[in-house]
Amino acid sequence: MFENRMPRYDILSEDAMAKLDAGWRRLITEIGVEFMDQRALDLFAKAGQKVEDNTVFLDPDFVLEQVAKAPAEFDIQARNPANNVHIGGNSMAFGAVYGPPFVREGEVRRDGTFDDFKNFARLAQSFAALDSAGGVVCEPNDTPLDSRHLDMTYALQTLTDKIYMGNVVSGVNAADTIAMSSILFGGRDNIEATPATISLINCNSPLRWDDRMLEAQFEYTSAAQPVVLTPFILMGAMSPVTIPAALVQQITEALSGIALSQLIRPGAPVVFGSFLSNIDMQSGSPTFGTPESGIGLLCTGQIARHFGLPFRTGGGLTSSQVPDGQAGYEALMTMMPTFLAGANWRSMTLRSASTPTRRSDMVATSSVPCTPWSASGPASTDRCCPPVRTTSAGTATAASTPQPVRARSGSRSSRTTSNRRSIRRSTRSCASTSCADVPSWGTEFPEPSN
Amino acid sequence: MFENRMPRYDILSEDAMAKLDAGWRRLITEIGVEFMDQRALDLFAKAGQKVEDNTVFLDPDFVLEQVAKAPAEFDIQARNPANNVHIGGNSMAFGAVYGPPFVREGEVRRDGTFDDFKNFARLAQSFAALDSAGGVVCEPNDTPLDSRHLDMTYALQTLTDKIYMGNVVSGVNAADTIAMSSILFGGRDNIEATPATISLINCNSPLRWDDRMLEAQFEYTSAAQPVVLTPFILMGAMSPVTIPAALVQQITEALSGIALSQLIRPGAPVVFGSFLSNIDMQSGSPTFGTPESGIGLLCTGQIARHFGLPFRTGGGLTSSQVPDGQAGYEALMTMMPTFLAGANWRSMTLRSASTPTRRSDMVATSSVPCTPWSASGPASTDRCCPPVRTTSAGTATAASTPQPVRARSGSRSSRTTSNRRSIRRSTRSCASTSCADVPSWGTEFPEPSN
Repeated sequence: MFENRMPRYDILSEDAMAKLDAGWRRLITEIGVEFMDQRALDLFAKAGQKVEDNTVFLDPDFVLEQVAKAPAEFDIQARNPANNVHIGGNSMAFGAVYGPPFVREGEVRRDGTFDDFKNFARLAQSFAALDSAGGVVCEPNDTPLDSRHLDMTYALQTLTDKIYMGNVVSGVNAADTIAMSSILFGGRDNIEATPATISLINCNSPLRWDDRMLEAQFEYTSAAQPVVLTPFILMGAMSPVTIPAALVQQITEALSGIALSQLIRPGAPVVFGSFLSNIDMQSGSPTFGTPESGIGLLCTGQIARHFGLPFRTGGGLTSSQVPDGQAGYEALMTMMPTFLAGANWRSMTLRSASTPTRRSDMVATSSVPCTPWSASGPASTDRCCPPVRTTSAGTATAASTPQPVRARSGSRSSRTTSNRRSIRRSTRSCASTSCADVPSWGTEFPEPSN
Repeated sequence: MFENRMPRYDILSEDAMAKLDAGWRRLITEIGVEFMDQRALDLFAKAGQKVEDNTVFLDPDFVLEQVAKAPAEFDIQARNPANNVHIGGNSMAFGAVYGPPFVREGEVRRDGTFDDFKNFARLAQSFAALDSAGGVVCEPNDTPLDSRHLDMTYALQTLTDKIYMGNVVSGVNAADTIAMSSILFGGRDNIEATPATISLINCNSPLRWDDRMLEAQFEYTSAAQPVVLTPFILMGAMSPVTIPAALVQQITEALSGIALSQLIRPGAPVVFGSFLSNIDMQSGSPTFGTPESGIGLLCTGQIARHFGLPFRTGGGLTSSQVPDGQAGYEALMTMMPTFLAGANWRSMTLRSASTPTRRSDMVATSSVPCTPWSASGPASTDRCCPPVRTTSAGTATAASTPQPVRARSGSRSSRTTSNRRSIRRSTRSCASTSCADVPSWGTEFPEPSN
């Protein structure tokens, strides 16, 4: 594993950090965070936090007490012990790309298939630079939705001997992943002693943890499997457009999710997640690899260290569709800060944000974990799954119009119901109260000191 | 002007800095530095330094006494006072590209012309991001060599109202530039009070300051015009291939040149220069935009601050011939450290190292100040000038074979003579005593601390 012994670049002055600290404390107290799962609401209420409908108003000191229970560093075991991974400290773990619905071969871009998935898994196995075989290395669109996560997990378990990422599309999928990992590693006790998976839990920014993410989080955290609690923020869409305000929101979201994890199982391993970029303010398109993203990345590293948590961020991000000059400089614009910030977990090497000229294209821009869907026309039942607001903040928020409720072809009616509940709320956007109230501090924010 | 208020990235630990400090002290004392100008040798001897032939063995503490006389910050006046430039501190000055012999229009690469030169000067004038109109923005190959510097300086003075760089091909050219600047700025007294030019003086690495560079330095420094004393090092060719050893050599060269400047005129403005990259160890080709270059750049910034000097380095460098993905990531690989290191003077935006498949191509890779020449066949007299070893360390050293002495078509016989003297010594390469003796510290070099 790569040991990052370079000094960290601390971009924030003490004043700036104090301002961010005051910001998240105000936001988490006065605006609160939505948790779309009754068990989460009950846990917070039982711990003495104020709960109104789905919104929890948290005492910042209570949050920090919970955060302090999370380990600063931990290990993940691989089928081949030589490939065990350490998360935290100077350790930098690199994983295969996560979530592309499409595969490009030469000039042709097409839906990813399970054969593609298996080949990407084999590639991840063969590159010594990759510490994790990844999770959704591409979306295997030709496999049935109900058992797709089983196919993917089995492929990752058998075609590689590296650590792999857990499926998070639902609580059922998470439970299945845990069950399969328990089989592979000799029982649930063994993976609870040393985790065998790591999973991305994305916040539905601004300020909402959605039902399917929370279902998955409950499963993984109960089993002591690490979760990467990741605000997915495209500034200007899911947060105010200024970096300081977006950072305040990011801290609020990440810490609230981490606090929940420690209520579920004190001491459970977590990673402070971040996916921070911005939209093009003229077109509304997501843009990756921007200077704002690079600066946000450096700030995030310092913030995670401030809270004593391992953190995930960065990678080689770009808004370009092809490996051209723009792709090169944008990728380095985020890759270099990834190292300077000392990110502990990084799960994409070169990731492109598609220009959303068609709605169906936008799934290429969505964050993990995204199941492809189409809102632009009839979709075949084996590809159609509910709109991604519940699991993919990037896509639906960038598109500000509410999405039609689509019946799901699968058999798990409870998920269909919970999706509908989420979808009804999908009109909530940056202009809504909670987001607009985030202080923007565009000019007041103190300059970094020298 | 851009005020760089970001924190500096200090990559070197105290131990590492101490090791570099011990290194240059040993090198400058035991191996010494060659100065190919009798006046320089006389000044050092008069100041009590040991001189043998052209080599000066310097007392490190004496060197630091001289370095301490140089100002940490200074101003350069422009024809339009709104375009005056401050060098040093948080100020970052950006100049147009320097030295390309060729111009590319679409798919066609051709010799630069004076019309091109004038257009590039107009472009430099029109871009607010550029603080300096540059010097040799391209080589105007269609102008007579004897008066070319006059044409260039006049164009820079009249087509732009920004600061411009001085010609350094010879002492005569430097004196002409000073005379023209005195006319423009109302007399030599005025430009001695506040300089009106800034000029690149390249070291002929390893460890030699050549005659024409020194002639120019004497002119400019006597007139209190700032000079950028720049070791031009491609690691593996002009220095050992390890970064620490190259840094030791770079410090030795830069400080020896700066010490000379303070003997010529105490308090004269100088800039700690750096051009640090490496060669491809398989082909011997110069490579720009490498990770080693980025790391060297960060180290150089910290070293210059250590000595209290403004410094020049960086830019968007690449080994690619076209603006492709490689050009993008290599340019950022050096551009981002340029900002993190807080470079005060930067005179190239996107600079390519040509692959030297033909000798005549190599002029494209040579450092400033380079007058194009051809060694591969008959050259017309108005293009032919002596081989560039005396003024362009990069080209001739990368080619390890000695160059034929070519008679110069110009009328200044003294320069032809001095060139011949240099050329006779051009076989001195990395394998020679002085370079091989630089400690390499490949494994001993302390890791940067966190």
